[in-house]
Amino acid sequence: MKKLINDPSRVVEESVEGFGLAHAELVTVHRDPWYVVRADAPVQGKVGLVSGGGSGHEPLHAGFVGRGMLTAAVPGAMFTSPTPDAIAPATLAANGGRGVLHIVKNYTGDVLNFETAAELAEADDVQVRAVIVNDDVAVEDSLYTAGRRGVAGTVAVEKIAGAAAERGDDLDGVTAIAERVIANVRSMGVALRAGIVPHAGVPGFDLTEEEIEIGIGIHGEPGRRRVPMAPADAITEQLTNPVLDDLGISGGEQVLLFVNGMGGTPASELYVVYRRARQLLEERGATVARSLVGNYVTSLEMQGASVTVLRLDDELTQLWDAPVHTAALRW
Amino acid sequence: MKKLINDPSRVVEESVEGFGLAHAELVTVHRDPWYVVRADAPVQGKVGLVSGGGSGHEPLHAGFVGRGMLTAAVPGAMFTSPTPDAIAPATLAANGGRGVLHIVKNYTGDVLNFETAAELAEADDVQVRAVIVNDDVAVEDSLYTAGRRGVAGTVAVEKIAGAAAERGDDLDGVTAIAERVIANVRSMGVALRAGIVPHAGVPGFDLTEEEIEIGIGIHGEPGRRRVPMAPADAITEQLTNPVLDDLGISGGEQVLLFVNGMGGTPASELYVVYRRARQLLEERGATVARSLVGNYVTSLEMQGASVTVLRLDDELTQLWDAPVHTAALRW
Repeated sequence: MKKLINDPSRVVEESVEGFGLAHAELVTVHRDPWYVVRADAPVQGKVGLVSGGGSGHEPLHAGFVGRGMLTAAVPGAMFTSPTPDAIAPATLAANGGRGVLHIVKNYTGDVLNFETAAELAEADDVQVRAVIVNDDVAVEDSLYTAGRRGVAGTVAVEKIAGAAAERGDDLDGVTAIAERVIANVRSMGVALRAGIVPHAGVPGFDLTEEEIEIGIGIHGEPGRRRVPMAPADAITEQLTNPVLDDLGISGGEQVLLFVNGMGGTPASELYVVYRRARQLLEERGATVARSLVGNYVTSLEMQGASVTVLRLDDELTQLWDAPVHTAALRW
Repeated sequence: MKKLINDPSRVVEESVEGFGLAHAELVTVHRDPWYVVRADAPVQGKVGLVSGGGSGHEPLHAGFVGRGMLTAAVPGAMFTSPTPDAIAPATLAANGGRGVLHIVKNYTGDVLNFETAAELAEADDVQVRAVIVNDDVAVEDSLYTAGRRGVAGTVAVEKIAGAAAERGDDLDGVTAIAERVIANVRSMGVALRAGIVPHAGVPGFDLTEEEIEIGIGIHGEPGRRRVPMAPADAITEQLTNPVLDDLGISGGEQVLLFVNGMGGTPASELYVVYRRARQLLEERGATVARSLVGNYVTSLEMQGASVTVLRLDDELTQLWDAPVHTAALRW
């Protein structure tokens, strides 16, 4: 294993420390327990948004802390849920007096730990709600999940719910907006080559030079099937059509098309995937009204990509367009 | 070789086409010859900025086309200089009546082709100047270069010169600002694993599981030396100290610290490198006033990173901070 790290047991802390130094105008890093919080938190009179999950998916979640998106992010160990004793204080730090929404990707450990943390925070008189992101159409249930997994659609949930909190919606309102995004967003991914978890030191799974995994999870969990390597357009069809079918996208609809890199795939290839996914949407008569292309929900240096489609309405579009100032998303 | 492409001979065009579709509010893609130009170009009364180079370094350069940065970018084939018959029309398209600055990375083919294109554009009565970026301290001369190579420091040149053009500086002024950035920026990189050029189909060079290349070029050209794999802090010292020595950074100075990913290295590792590079600067008494961390000048899916330091003064800091709206850099 060759990685730009010092010690597998310290990579998360050193990385978060570097992140805090690089973005000190945006965030404050809290140690022991480790979490990342807006430098100006708590923002009085605004609903707080807290997310988190295993590390290794950067820039998710710390890269989305800032004005118009998350109030705090809690990084777990690599591919490991953050613990309630970190989530709870992050929740208190994010509370500006109007309650806190937990945005949780649907993995069993994450769901349980956020639930426990919510109870701890409520014992401190902070009102907490939670939404569970489960956008991955590839599989029902999986290695770490009952139901569908939460993957790249999380970015849309965090952005749009963050904009709703920023405009002053109350906790019910922000929760309802987050639920509406979740109801209208779907994703599916492919892996060409696995990433390497530092403390494991070997690839998370093996693929030969002739095969790829369609429907991969962001921890390398198995997807729908292994198939022979194919041209990008054919692979993109295998990702995009199940997403569009599941969403029931039809003519005349407006969507956000998000092509996400898994960490080790060049940007040039992501745009090749975007090109074909967009053609497929247009062939169905849908309009791609907004786009996002890049590495936002990664799996270390995994080679691969995912396609996410969000059905837009006027309000979701406005909230997507609202100003955001985070390390990884800014406009 | 497993890549998300359809045909090695069409990957650049399909990728640029996807890029143009995803960012249609920012750029227009011109075909045959292929170049990317601001959607609102030419901007009357402003100096135009044109850069370009071999593809495979995305988001460089097309990702930096937009308000406050480049007016046009000319992508060559993978790792291959763009041709004068593409650079010249891009130059004409970028001309708003006050001349055009070519920002050229120091590779023999790029320099020659931009020179020829400048002659063609001048025959059409467009005044053209050129600056040559040569920030890589690793080696004098190399496989494709007389003198030092142009690498990640190019981002700072394009951002700051772009801001000077945006505020209305004339061609002499924008050129002088670009030269001042070039005089004050230095870089050095490391590779852990090579990228794969699509039409080659095999890694550009071989490194064993126990060795890394210090001073690597962005096309995989040899650097200073191959050394055994080491902890990130030790590698970061081998990149940062030569940069700081060459720049002659001393106590009391303000710098921009830019840790650039080569394409296949996780963001978490880039922040581990950033953390140590920042410590080294602070140990010399310098202040890191601005930071940039991410994949900006890549080498396909190469694993590795580079450290760039720019000595700042008040004007360069203001120009760095000035608004920018491109696909890859926005604030």
